[in-house]
Amino acid sequence: MSQVKPQVLKGFRDYLPEVMAPREQMLNTVATVFRSFGFAPLATPALEYAEVILGKYGAEGDKLLYRFRDNGDRDVALRYDLTVPLARVMGQHKHLLKPFRRYQIAPVWRAEKPGKGRFREFSQCDVDIVGSSSLLADFECMQVGVAVLKSLGVTKFVMRINDRRVLDGLMARLGVTTTDLKHEILRSIDKLPKVGWDGVRDELATKIEFNASQLAAIRKFLNGDISALDDSVVDMEVAGPGIESLNTLLSWADELGIRSYFEVDLSIARGLDYYTSTIYETFLTELPEFGSVMSGGRYDGLLSLFSKDDMPAVGISLGVDRLLAGLQELGVLPESEAAPQVFVTVFDNSMEAYSIRVASVLRSYGLRVQLHLQPGQKLGKQFKAAARSGANAVVIAGPDEMASDCISLKRLSTGEQHDGVALESAAKVLSTWLTDSDEDT
Amino acid sequence: MSQVKPQVLKGFRDYLPEVMAPREQMLNTVATVFRSFGFAPLATPALEYAEVILGKYGAEGDKLLYRFRDNGDRDVALRYDLTVPLARVMGQHKHLLKPFRRYQIAPVWRAEKPGKGRFREFSQCDVDIVGSSSLLADFECMQVGVAVLKSLGVTKFVMRINDRRVLDGLMARLGVTTTDLKHEILRSIDKLPKVGWDGVRDELATKIEFNASQLAAIRKFLNGDISALDDSVVDMEVAGPGIESLNTLLSWADELGIRSYFEVDLSIARGLDYYTSTIYETFLTELPEFGSVMSGGRYDGLLSLFSKDDMPAVGISLGVDRLLAGLQELGVLPESEAAPQVFVTVFDNSMEAYSIRVASVLRSYGLRVQLHLQPGQKLGKQFKAAARSGANAVVIAGPDEMASDCISLKRLSTGEQHDGVALESAAKVLSTWLTDSDEDT
Repeated sequence: MSQVKPQVLKGFRDYLPEVMAPREQMLNTVATVFRSFGFAPLATPALEYAEVILGKYGAEGDKLLYRFRDNGDRDVALRYDLTVPLARVMGQHKHLLKPFRRYQIAPVWRAEKPGKGRFREFSQCDVDIVGSSSLLADFECMQVGVAVLKSLGVTKFVMRINDRRVLDGLMARLGVTTTDLKHEILRSIDKLPKVGWDGVRDELATKIEFNASQLAAIRKFLNGDISALDDSVVDMEVAGPGIESLNTLLSWADELGIRSYFEVDLSIARGLDYYTSTIYETFLTELPEFGSVMSGGRYDGLLSLFSKDDMPAVGISLGVDRLLAGLQELGVLPESEAAPQVFVTVFDNSMEAYSIRVASVLRSYGLRVQLHLQPGQKLGKQFKAAARSGANAVVIAGPDEMASDCISLKRLSTGEQHDGVALESAAKVLSTWLTDSDEDT
Repeated sequence: MSQVKPQVLKGFRDYLPEVMAPREQMLNTVATVFRSFGFAPLATPALEYAEVILGKYGAEGDKLLYRFRDNGDRDVALRYDLTVPLARVMGQHKHLLKPFRRYQIAPVWRAEKPGKGRFREFSQCDVDIVGSSSLLADFECMQVGVAVLKSLGVTKFVMRINDRRVLDGLMARLGVTTTDLKHEILRSIDKLPKVGWDGVRDELATKIEFNASQLAAIRKFLNGDISALDDSVVDMEVAGPGIESLNTLLSWADELGIRSYFEVDLSIARGLDYYTSTIYETFLTELPEFGSVMSGGRYDGLLSLFSKDDMPAVGISLGVDRLLAGLQELGVLPESEAAPQVFVTVFDNSMEAYSIRVASVLRSYGLRVQLHLQPGQKLGKQFKAAARSGANAVVIAGPDEMASDCISLKRLSTGEQHDGVALESAAKVLSTWLTDSDEDT
């Protein structure tokens, strides 16, 4: 009919079932872990008043907004992240109990230049605690991050932690006072794992002229562990509370037997300006090139945008698509629930009702069952359709089977066949096959 | 800081945790049922080329689009439903195996006048089978609808089914040939449950002058059951296949022991123009005023919008928010997972590490545990915070408890308290309490 070309916009994409099924399973697991820590789900509109969103991400960010006038001539924009909507929610719904612990998993939109792994529509998965200044809240977020990865079957990863106040202590020692320059330097330091010390030094040189002793202090800072920090490297009055807080976090991790997942890394600075103390990034040990799959920190202040109340906050954000790609690469993706487990053939038109009943009985045992929808088709073709569907087993339910209220079962991977299996015993045979195939993979 | 008022756009809303938590649980259950029938999840972009979406819903629909020019001056629009994107997917991704069974749960946007229960952003939950003309596919969709409601704990409901061809048989008998008039009449007939026969007759009179025998035929049609239909009421050549198909569907329902959930209702016409044969709507017996919570039918043709291939299709769509409200009204909403089950107090600053460990151990047993984040607070205040959190039980973990690696437990509903419970036995006590409280509610 229509001559319109079926295509998506540049930077947008469909998630077809083969991708969407494991993605949905992953997010279900993640949400279950979030809930076990007392976090509850929140959803906010995709579209907000532009003034709610504008001016929070700097001029750069504002340029990337999908902003337009709606039919009522309102100035509106698609959300750019999940943090500003959270600030709006905290300002608008005054009755919410604090500390407010919420998670939100939802798409955001940014009109960025699309590139490898960079899309204009992508999902964010944020968990935050609003209204607590306690370091316990920081640790809850770090713990939830560890628990999420473990629950997804990832065993080798490291969460690199740092504290903005320790970085501030360095700045104070270096005599850097302007915010802009501070952020420039943080951005350079943040690149240490990528470009090494020489790279950092060269990049710093383009921004400010440090003398030899200053450069030595920076180098010692980036190489050293926190116990080695003293007034020769950082202003201890500024950095002290940060060092103490990092030590406490590590002692708690020790207490829980999860110390090995954490590492202090003074080069971690986080790009965003709003962090105030604890910051962390998480790397898969076997896939460092993937970058951080889970990052965040404490950002007291940002959530008071729409409120006169004090809104200390700490959170951690999971890179959904990056982590999914990582799980795939590591081979720990759960068996996809996109494919049926059992394929029920339809012998001929007169046998439709029996096949319907068989499918229904098998589903009642919790199996994912696909019923073949071309009853006229030769059995050979139906078997081919079964193989294409990804099912592990095929059911034949012909007149002979119906006469004795049973079915024949064929296992596709091995060709093994059981004839005349009573309907109520079928689920047992099938689940043995399915368990075996889980072990194979 | 900012003077911006924290508010959402008219017709938009936040889902705060108290609403979002049961909603998310409901949709998880629904998705599990979908998967058991071999359906797999699909996601498509919120934003599409306007030409993909335009012209599919008539002039009325086009007016309701959120349509604008993006930063690259492309003519774009937010999706209006999940059916046109499905048609686009079928046209674009030629490799997808047919029959293609997918579900999609996602928001859509319509610039309608907001009203009670009518929002500009709302979720659709669609399950469809594309590429099968078999009546088996229609029955799969009806069955999945029944299975969804049963899995949500709804026992009293009826799915009213009809067939467009039976309605066409009536039109043929009445001599109505123009599509517009046909749809006008269908829309009047559809109102039977609301306005009764007199209302339908009066509304018909404003559109076309029927003679007494025509009116008698319509009345007999609307009152009668399908076995009473003959050439005096409908053109049997047109209606015959529809009647036969309804009978087959009912016989299959009989075979599965779910016949009582179905009722043929010849007044069901469905507002939308694109249905071609089977149609159905589902009503909660105790809440008829809620309207249909689950509707759909066969719509061969619509999905060929972007393809030269034949795309017979059948589906069922669940009214997410309406059904959620229904479950709440019926009192069958599952216990909300928004609230923690256990609240762990923090005796004082020196006891933080022990409380962290206690929370972690309890979480490892699958409990939802909230750790108190104001360690300095008096225990009385912490207990108040526990009560507000909705938790069932409070944990006290002071120095005495730590000395013997145990905790004290208090049940909030009864005041019952167990002191000196070994950490590894605590989960047992707690789950007894939680099971009891499930039975209470």
